[in-house]
This record gives sequence, C-alpha cells and structure tokens, in this order.
Amino acid sequence: MELQTTLVSVSDLEALVMAALGKCGLSEADARTTTDVLVSTDAFGVFTHGTKALRGYVRRLRGGGLKADARPEIASEGPAWAIVDGHSAVGMVTSVFAMNAAITKAKATGMAYVGVRNSCHFGAAGYYALMAAKAGMIGMAMANDIPSMAVPGARQPVLGTNPFAYAVPAGQEDPIFLDIASSAVAGGKVRIYQALNQKVPDTWLVDQEGLPTTDPWLYPQSASLMPFAGHKGYGIAMMIETLAGVLSGAAARWGVKSWIDDDPSWATQHGAAFLVIDVGQITPIQLFRERVDAMIREIRATPKAKGAERVYLPGEMEWQRRREARTKGIALPADVVDSLRGVAEDLGLTAAWLGDRT
Amino acid sequence: MELQTTLVSVSDLEALVMAALGKCGLSEADARTTTDVLVSTDAFGVFTHGTKALRGYVRRLRGGGLKADARPEIASEGPAWAIVDGHSAVGMVTSVFAMNAAITKAKATGMAYVGVRNSCHFGAAGYYALMAAKAGMIGMAMANDIPSMAVPGARQPVLGTNPFAYAVPAGQEDPIFLDIASSAVAGGKVRIYQALNQKVPDTWLVDQEGLPTTDPWLYPQSASLMPFAGHKGYGIAMMIETLAGVLSGAAARWGVKSWIDDDPSWATQHGAAFLVIDVGQITPIQLFRERVDAMIREIRATPKAKGAERVYLPGEMEWQRRREARTKGIALPADVVDSLRGVAEDLGLTAAWLGDRT
Repeated sequence: MELQTTLVSVSDLEALVMAALGKCGLSEADARTTTDVLVSTDAFGVFTHGTKALRGYVRRLRGGGLKADARPEIASEGPAWAIVDGHSAVGMVTSVFAMNAAITKAKATGMAYVGVRNSCHFGAAGYYALMAAKAGMIGMAMANDIPSMAVPGARQPVLGTNPFAYAVPAGQEDPIFLDIASSAVAGGKVRIYQALNQKVPDTWLVDQEGLPTTDPWLYPQSASLMPFAGHKGYGIAMMIETLAGVLSGAAARWGVKSWIDDDPSWATQHGAAFLVIDVGQITPIQLFRERVDAMIREIRATPKAKGAERVYLPGEMEWQRRREARTKGIALPADVVDSLRGVAEDLGLTAAWLGDRT
Repeated sequence: MELQTTLVSVSDLEALVMAALGKCGLSEADARTTTDVLVSTDAFGVFTHGTKALRGYVRRLRGGGLKADARPEIASEGPAWAIVDGHSAVGMVTSVFAMNAAITKAKATGMAYVGVRNSCHFGAAGYYALMAAKAGMIGMAMANDIPSMAVPGARQPVLGTNPFAYAVPAGQEDPIFLDIASSAVAGGKVRIYQALNQKVPDTWLVDQEGLPTTDPWLYPQSASLMPFAGHKGYGIAMMIETLAGVLSGAAARWGVKSWIDDDPSWATQHGAAFLVIDVGQITPIQLFRERVDAMIREIRATPKAKGAERVYLPGEMEWQRRREARTKGIALPADVVDSLRGVAEDLGLTAAWLGDRT
C-alpha cells in the first residue's frame, strides 16, 4: 500500500511553514518554534501530526480562536510543579514554553509536573518529550482532545485519542522514545485507508451501535475509534485526561473544541501535561547513559523472529527516517502536500516544489 | 469458563497469611503490611497477584533470598525524589515504605519520584497507586521483572511483563484506578488456560521462532508473552524498565532473578518506581474531586454498545468485587487454594476452610 509522495528538502518545507506563520502574524521566534515541531515530526515520518496540521492552525489564527501575539505564562507554581496558561497561543508555542518550565523546575528539585490550559492541538507529543532527553533528562508529554474514541461498552466517543510520549537520554545511541495515541490508531490513519479505499482491521473502529466495523468511511460521523488493547488504552487515556485536562484546569472531554471542525473563532481549550525527571541528580549521568546504551544494544542483538529483519528500539525507526530526511529530503504523502497547497493558496504563498493543485 | 472456587472470609484469609509470615520471622507490622497488599488484591479479584504468590515469598524467606528482618531505607534523596534500598526485605514492605516516602516528598514539593532497588516481586502495582489516592494524591506505581515477554521482531523474551498502575482520588465516587501488565495478559492468565486445557488467543504468545501460537502449554519454556498492542506495550515496558530498573540502580532485564524459579537463596534484585502528585497544592482539592466525580458520572451515563451491560470506569469492577468480598467473602480459585494449602503444609499451619489437599 503506497500513496503518492512529493520529495521536499527539510529547509524548503521549513521555509514554507515559516512564511505561512509569518503571514498570520506570529513573531519570528514563535514561527521558528512551531515550524521546528511540525517539520521535525514530518522528518520522523509521522505525517499525520506534522505540517499536515498547519492548515487547521492557520484557519484558527485567521479566525481568532488562536492568537498570534499571545504569550503563554506561568499562572501558578510550586517547587516541583507549575500550571501554564497558554492564552490561546499556538499549541506548539505554549507546549515548548511549558516543557522548558518543567525542565527548569526539575533541575531545581529533581522532578516536575507542568500542566497546561488554554492551549490547542500540540501536534506530536514526542517532540516535547525529546526536549527533556536533549537536556539529559527523562521527559513525558501528553494532551487531551475532543472525544473521538469509544471505550469498552460504549457506543459513542468518550475520550480523545489522548497521546502519550516519553523519551530517555542515551549515551552514544539515540534517545529511546515512544509517541503513541491511546486509540488503536490515530484518526489520520483511518483517513489514509479512506484515501486508499481499503477496509480497516476490526480493532480500529466501532459503529453507532458500538460494534466493530471495518468500513473506514463511517469515520468520523458514524464510527468512533477504539482504544488500544481495550481497557488498557481506555485506562491510559483516562490518566492523560486527568493530568492534562482536569488537574491543569483545562477543558476536559466534550469541553475541548475540535481544532479541525469547530468554528475558528473559538478557543479550543486543550490541556496538556509535561513530566520531567532530572537523571543527573539521582544517579551519575554517565553511568545512566552507559546503562541505557547497554540495554539498547542487548535488545537490538536479540535473536530475530522468523521473517523479521531486526528488532527495533522504541523510536529507532523514527531516528533512521529523520537522518534520511536530512540528507535526502522528506517524501511527503499526497494528502500532506494537498493540505500545504491549500495553505499556500489561502495566504498567497508560492513554492516551486508544491506544484499545481491536482 | 469457570474454575472451582473456595469461599473464604477476608479475615480468615488474612489470618492464614499473617500466621505464615509470622512463622517466617516477619515482625507483626511487616506481616500486616504484606498481608494487606496480598488480601486486598484477592478482594479486588486479581487472583494472579494476590495470596497465590505467598508460597514463592515463603520459599525465598526460608531460603535466605528474602530477609525477614531487613529494613528498607532511603539511600539517597533530593527535594522531589529518593532512592530506596530494600535490602532484600519482602517486596510489599519495601514498596509500601517507598510509596510513603513518595507521598511525603510530594507533600513538600508537589510531585515526587521514588526509585527502588534490591526489592523483590511487589505483587499488584495498583495497591501502591491507591495509597496515594487515599492521601488525596495522584499515584503511579511500576516495577520490572525478569524477561518473559518478546517484543516485535524478537523470538525470545526481551523484557518483563512490567506492570503499571495509577490511581486518582475522586469525591463521592471510588478512586479511578488502572493496574495493567505491559504484556497482552499476565503469565498467570496463560496458566489458567493450561488448567482449563483451552487454547489462548493468538495475540498472547509467540513460539520459539517468534511466531504467534495458541498453545498455552508451550509457555513458559518454549513460548514468550507478547506485549499489548505491539510496539505500544513494548514501549511502555521500556519506560518502566528505565524508571524502575535503570534509574533506580536496580537490576535490569536478565539481571533480575525469577522470584518463582531461581534459587531461593538469591536476592532477585527487582526494581520499582513510584510517582506522586499532590493535587491539593496545584488546584483546590474539593474542586478537583468534583471534576473527577463529574467525569466519572458522565462516562458511566454514555449510551451503551449493543449487548453491553454498562460502561465501567477503570477500577470500577475491582471496587465492586471488593465490596462483595467484604460482605460475602472471597471466592478463591482452586489454584490459589492449592498454593495456600502448600504454604500451610510447609509451615505446619492449619485452617479449616483450606480443606484437604486434592
């Protein structure tokens, strides 16, 4: 199964996103922050959460639901925690601010929680977790969203596909990192099956009676996503809703507005949460890095299953893709290119690599 | 599918466990702590992790791998973290000590991490997470174990079925809580299928070639457990290994010894980790409790899927079982009763409800 792709260099893609955000009134610094989150995500190959989302943000920036000049700020704090109010700044701007606050707090006390309110869709959780790993710390990032996921026994959406990510610094190896939705798959993946006109596995969606369906076209109007591993994904989504939505004072569940479908003049009021542990305060950082490297190498050397090419570490495929993206460019799927073409048209921007609208 | 059960009152079960641990030299207080963890777990209906495990602990206490008179202590600490050395005390004694340390730390700073080394199997992670919820805090608990779980692409065990639990305090409702293995199912569940002589679903086990198998008898010698949801369960297990095993300075992966099969004179060197957030420092606790209650009630009222009796909250089934256990007694499965009968025989104890060995 292959979708058509367009090869673009990281710098060309960045230039387009920077230009679009500049047109919307973002400062150079905020545009740079947002661009780095989105393009890094594409470089990792996570196209459902990269620059494809830009059009939705632009629409909301122009509609007033996102504010180009808003500054996130710490609304309240203690030694090992803070609550950040995003004041409807772009989700990436608020989330980077909040993760930096968590890193600073963790540096002082060893561990910190930072909750976020009045944010928006924050893209890929993994980016923020990796900020901590770059600082030699263990990071976690999570966010809530408008419900689109049913849970065992329910026929309607109950929770968002609340994402969770963590990252662990290594020594010579790449950081370990994981970035997952609490649904079996992200909604964007169902849309890919729509584009391919293929049935989905029966563990992805339930229909309006709450029964499994393989028809991708029912989603999202007449089908809900399913959590991964039944009650396990449901339980993890509830934890995220609590830490990102309830504890932070953000909107929760249906209080969150859709960053895609709802009126662009509305603030979506997403919540988020960031946790950081400062490894070096707890154990000698070099020893920790060596132990992580050893664990990575041992796991990689595990005898392979019949037919398997290798045993990957969490995040390893993404690092490989990113290295390739930096040298060879990013092969953007057609749906992403279409979306970016729409952004360019809306804002009167051009880029040779975008080609003509099909 | 039903196994034979024996009905026993909570107090009768507690009396047997107390007597057994007393015979092994535990102090009254340590025996009480251990008993409460194990019997609470049975009362929740999680029989794979309750008093069934007692026989393994008794064997190790008598063999010297666990020390009845060891005192866990804080080996190092900072404002929002501590490392606890269990000195080979019973896993429950060390884990309760560590969770209490995390609660105390969180009370001072808002959030805390406590890592544990030189512990043993700690039973059900949920018990410790609930200690935090009882104190009005959000708690998480996790532990590593000897590898028994393959990961995508591997034909051999790579990680333990590393458990994760969290609990959230509510107001008038029971705390939300989740307690899961990072495998699709716990090994104990495969043993139940052995007892029932039934095939297991093809998402539970891989054989020695790393391919799915439905034969429960291959486990554990010639089959490995699979993580839940493929790379998602694998990634969560790695996070737990890092926080519980590597950061804490405990043994990791194959460095951990089997609390069931390995020489009982050996210390198993399990690691664990506990995270606590003190809700009341971050947001008014009453407001938080009301928001959690509202979320619980809204989710419970979600229209039900066709054929579903109700929509359960994470932990709700366990609370129901526990209430029933307290009034009607616990219906212990035959494998648990057999195991306890073995303990009684080994230690020269009697209990009328145990009946004769079959």
